[in-house]
Amino acid sequence: MKDFVRGGAEISERLGKQLDFVLAADKLKEITRQTYLASGARLEDDAEHSWHLALMAVLLSEYAPAGTDVLKTVTMVLIHDLVEIEAGDTFAYDYERQKTAHEREAAAAKHLFSLLPDDQRDYLKSLWNEFEAYETSEARFAHALDNCQPLMLNDASGGKGWSEHHVRRSDVLRRNARTASGAPKLWEYMSGVIEDNVRRGTIADDAPRGD
Amino acid sequence: MKDFVRGGAEISERLGKQLDFVLAADKLKEITRQTYLASGARLEDDAEHSWHLALMAVLLSEYAPAGTDVLKTVTMVLIHDLVEIEAGDTFAYDYERQKTAHEREAAAAKHLFSLLPDDQRDYLKSLWNEFEAYETSEARFAHALDNCQPLMLNDASGGKGWSEHHVRRSDVLRRNARTASGAPKLWEYMSGVIEDNVRRGTIADDAPRGD
Repeated sequence: MKDFVRGGAEISERLGKQLDFVLAADKLKEITRQTYLASGARLEDDAEHSWHLALMAVLLSEYAPAGTDVLKTVTMVLIHDLVEIEAGDTFAYDYERQKTAHEREAAAAKHLFSLLPDDQRDYLKSLWNEFEAYETSEARFAHALDNCQPLMLNDASGGKGWSEHHVRRSDVLRRNARTASGAPKLWEYMSGVIEDNVRRGTIADDAPRGD
Repeated sequence: MKDFVRGGAEISERLGKQLDFVLAADKLKEITRQTYLASGARLEDDAEHSWHLALMAVLLSEYAPAGTDVLKTVTMVLIHDLVEIEAGDTFAYDYERQKTAHEREAAAAKHLFSLLPDDQRDYLKSLWNEFEAYETSEARFAHALDNCQPLMLNDASGGKGWSEHHVRRSDVLRRNARTASGAPKLWEYMSGVIEDNVRRGTIADDAPRGD
């Protein structure tokens, strides 16, 4: 079946759909996040962030819940932000926009993943839903990484992402309420970093220590 | 063993080394490549490129040689350009710099991967050597993706990456001499794209069709 033409080449409909999706996904590189690179040079984008999480999923898998499937987690983090191509990035501490984020992102997921052949559309959509539901080992580990990575970058760049947005300890603790269930050893490190930044004044001290 | 302190947190030496590596890897986002984004807006960087290859490794694995290990391929593409943090990006068609690229990159690999605990240092180093040796199924598939992705972006952005660098058909065919052994169906598509761009004049027509 060579009924698709892409770039002047006759290819199967299946490969054509896959390549259309791969090309549409390129837009993830143009979605800017609110986290600075470790060097502080500029804000990072969603594709860079997703690459970093995938690398962490491989190298830090020993801290995931027992039985966590690494390839599944890697795939989950590679695709977890693709919906932001249509829905936009929602800053972790923008509570107004957070209220509508899931609805906007679910519509985007439905549209974007539908570029793929049906079996891969269904797989990526279920994987994204699993990430959002935050219940399985893979989803909890993926969320732990998704919280740990910007914390590492914020800390390395002198906390300027936090201080520019007037982030408070209660914000960070609320966001990380379930991090320990996805990677307890990472959470030990992360809570140390949070307290250190509270001491340095880059995270505002608005609440009693919550660990 | 809590003999490491990172970000004010006491952690194990093993986790400390892993986090040091994860943070050092952040620099990959600041290594600019010679390929434009599909939109043509700007050049992409190595972290974005690596994310894109990892996504393709998952979604296009059915075109890899039989028995290809997907997680191994994904890990390989996630780390394949890390050496460029120290060695710099070498443009695919800069034959002078290509001559010394492997030597510069091998020294960088030795240094960079040594930030990790010994077992992970050895694993990533062997995986990078395997990629460079271009022999196993995973290495051949990874190289096919590493050649297909910039070709897709160059084609989508109107071939300006090729025309700016005066790239000739013989250059592209030489670079892709072994692509068909890593993903024959992708190579069918790619060779169609190459010929289409030769017709459009974005790739210079200096040699007979070589397929």
